[in-house]
Amino acid sequence: MTTPRFSRTEIVDTASLAAATETISKKHSIRQPALIVGTGLLGASIGLGLRNAGVDVLLEDPSPSALGVAEDIGAGRSLIESDQPGTVIVAAPPDVTGEEVIKALQRWPQTVVLDIASVKTAIADEIAAAVAAGRISSADTQRYIGTHPMAGRERSGPVAARGELFTAAPWVLCTSETTPQYVVDIASDIARLLGATIYHMSTEDHDSAVAQISHLPQIAASLLASRLQDTSVQALQLAGNGLRDTTRIAASEGSLWVQILTANAEQILPELYGMKEDLDRLICTLNQPFESGSRLDVAQLMYEGNQGQARIPGKHGGPAEAFALVTVLVDDAPGSIVAALQAVAEAGVNVEDLRMDHSSGYQVGMLEIAVVPGRKQHLVDSLTDLGWKVL
Amino acid sequence: MTTPRFSRTEIVDTASLAAATETISKKHSIRQPALIVGTGLLGASIGLGLRNAGVDVLLEDPSPSALGVAEDIGAGRSLIESDQPGTVIVAAPPDVTGEEVIKALQRWPQTVVLDIASVKTAIADEIAAAVAAGRISSADTQRYIGTHPMAGRERSGPVAARGELFTAAPWVLCTSETTPQYVVDIASDIARLLGATIYHMSTEDHDSAVAQISHLPQIAASLLASRLQDTSVQALQLAGNGLRDTTRIAASEGSLWVQILTANAEQILPELYGMKEDLDRLICTLNQPFESGSRLDVAQLMYEGNQGQARIPGKHGGPAEAFALVTVLVDDAPGSIVAALQAVAEAGVNVEDLRMDHSSGYQVGMLEIAVVPGRKQHLVDSLTDLGWKVL
Repeated sequence: MTTPRFSRTEIVDTASLAAATETISKKHSIRQPALIVGTGLLGASIGLGLRNAGVDVLLEDPSPSALGVAEDIGAGRSLIESDQPGTVIVAAPPDVTGEEVIKALQRWPQTVVLDIASVKTAIADEIAAAVAAGRISSADTQRYIGTHPMAGRERSGPVAARGELFTAAPWVLCTSETTPQYVVDIASDIARLLGATIYHMSTEDHDSAVAQISHLPQIAASLLASRLQDTSVQALQLAGNGLRDTTRIAASEGSLWVQILTANAEQILPELYGMKEDLDRLICTLNQPFESGSRLDVAQLMYEGNQGQARIPGKHGGPAEAFALVTVLVDDAPGSIVAALQAVAEAGVNVEDLRMDHSSGYQVGMLEIAVVPGRKQHLVDSLTDLGWKVL
Repeated sequence: MTTPRFSRTEIVDTASLAAATETISKKHSIRQPALIVGTGLLGASIGLGLRNAGVDVLLEDPSPSALGVAEDIGAGRSLIESDQPGTVIVAAPPDVTGEEVIKALQRWPQTVVLDIASVKTAIADEIAAAVAAGRISSADTQRYIGTHPMAGRERSGPVAARGELFTAAPWVLCTSETTPQYVVDIASDIARLLGATIYHMSTEDHDSAVAQISHLPQIAASLLASRLQDTSVQALQLAGNGLRDTTRIAASEGSLWVQILTANAEQILPELYGMKEDLDRLICTLNQPFESGSRLDVAQLMYEGNQGQARIPGKHGGPAEAFALVTVLVDDAPGSIVAALQAVAEAGVNVEDLRMDHSSGYQVGMLEIAVVPGRKQHLVDSLTDLGWKVL
């Protein structure tokens, strides 16, 4: 399952046959049945995806309604007394994940246990405390591996679950030298069966990474969006895509983020201190904007922002590419976007990225198409010839 | 020109005939020729747009090469000694705009002068200082109106100029009770001929509005992106759309933003103090994440972010709408996005918003389509029936 295809027609070729064979062999390396503890969006999606891959899935959740929905959508069947899971996947809320992992290690002495919470050190600490308290043994902890599938954070609940949720998403496995290979293999199989891309990191590296690339952006978006609470309606009418993009994730679910931010406080704080230092300097500078050196200070901040932004990898994980943008005006009728993209396809130009750029007050949109720079002029000419308004 | 059409075929009906007639009558209310001072992206785009509307356009720029490019692309003709402009549009860099406005008022005693800089109070102050110094009279200042077209900030230079740059973009006119109606009319005609949506605001309201909806987002994005300068490549591989969206505008041109931020420091500072207060509180809380009240503190910040984000108007300037999202997996071949959207159009569902959601490491993309909630299930069913993978 190295290269899943998502075209409309299934093309049976040797590559896909080989991939299918590999998938079947993988099926049997997960210890079945797999028990999923917690049937929210992520748990139910894992259940659906594993069942699609032919794995027998058991479900457990303290909420009978969440469990019922997960069963109804086909994510698995409710755990009963006589069941003996071979693998346990803890998909509980972050603040009870550690305890659920410990309970699973106690309850199923032969079973590999993994969790999918988005902060890993806090859980490792809870497990170490349980060893110190004699609740579980050191040997028990060898059967545990912490993982983090980076998907699905913008919706919630089992109703939103999809087996394909993890397709092409990063899935981090927090391995150490002492993690037995068979445990890593089982976690890898699960991630691979669900179509994710596997990354190996230490617990500390993972938590530091998500502090920087996920938790800090969430904080910045929430700090910024909270300033809009008292902004006049007149001012908000002028809002453009800059404001929309920088604040979009501020709509995320608060209760989940309270758990994440408090659990990863230690890794987040150094970043917040750095941000505070830059903010304090900017405030100081803008209090004397025309003093000698002030413009240089602001230029420095902008430059550092340019530098940091340029380091974010582009599409497909490659280096950030400078695509050329072609903006086409489209009206709001059904089919107009299709017609525009049809014209792009007829010009033989591949769409590397795509976004709609809406403006207030008009029933039109700007369709912004990213293409490789060498194809831009050809595309502009082709579209213009066909009568499209190209900006 | 109240409802421009951007469909591929021109439908001649009574409404468009009326609009065309209105356009023609407008042409003659601008005092011609119009002189554009400064032929960067915005100046050259205004020139192109006005020439398309039949206005005689003169150009002036201290850079002979910028002026030459602007002439070559058809934005107007270079100003000569004998020319007598009827309207002057100052499109110079923000930090010289005030002086260029003053010089234009001195040089052309009968001419209406407007500028398009993105901060207005600083320019008004410079003009008042010129009156106090006896360089221009109070009567001269009656011929001036400050305006701000909110477009084109992500690219620069006359090569990128397009006459349609301002289509459907907000264009703020900073009017006061003492602005003569004929001056407002001329500025309105220019904005309208270029297809923009006009908003009237006081100078102070404008500068406060852009501080909140444009300058603060830029600062937040730059502060956040600058933290990524030392982030490991391994961590950056995990970057998702949350990070990409919150930092996108951190790629903006530094030198322009130095001018904007220093010029509007007074309006920006209260917002920065508010942000600093929230950041300080969060740092304090995360230093003691499990103290009583800490979780509530974090929840409060997340809630305030939710509230602020929800106030941003949606498409077409209406209230923010909760569209339902349908995500379709598409592969990377030319035409696959078209094929998917063709299927959406065949299902009779209008695309309200659109974005590509890329993941690292895979040659596939998720096409996220926003639709009115009542149409979601029909769309999901239709696409699934046609063999699309819908998340």
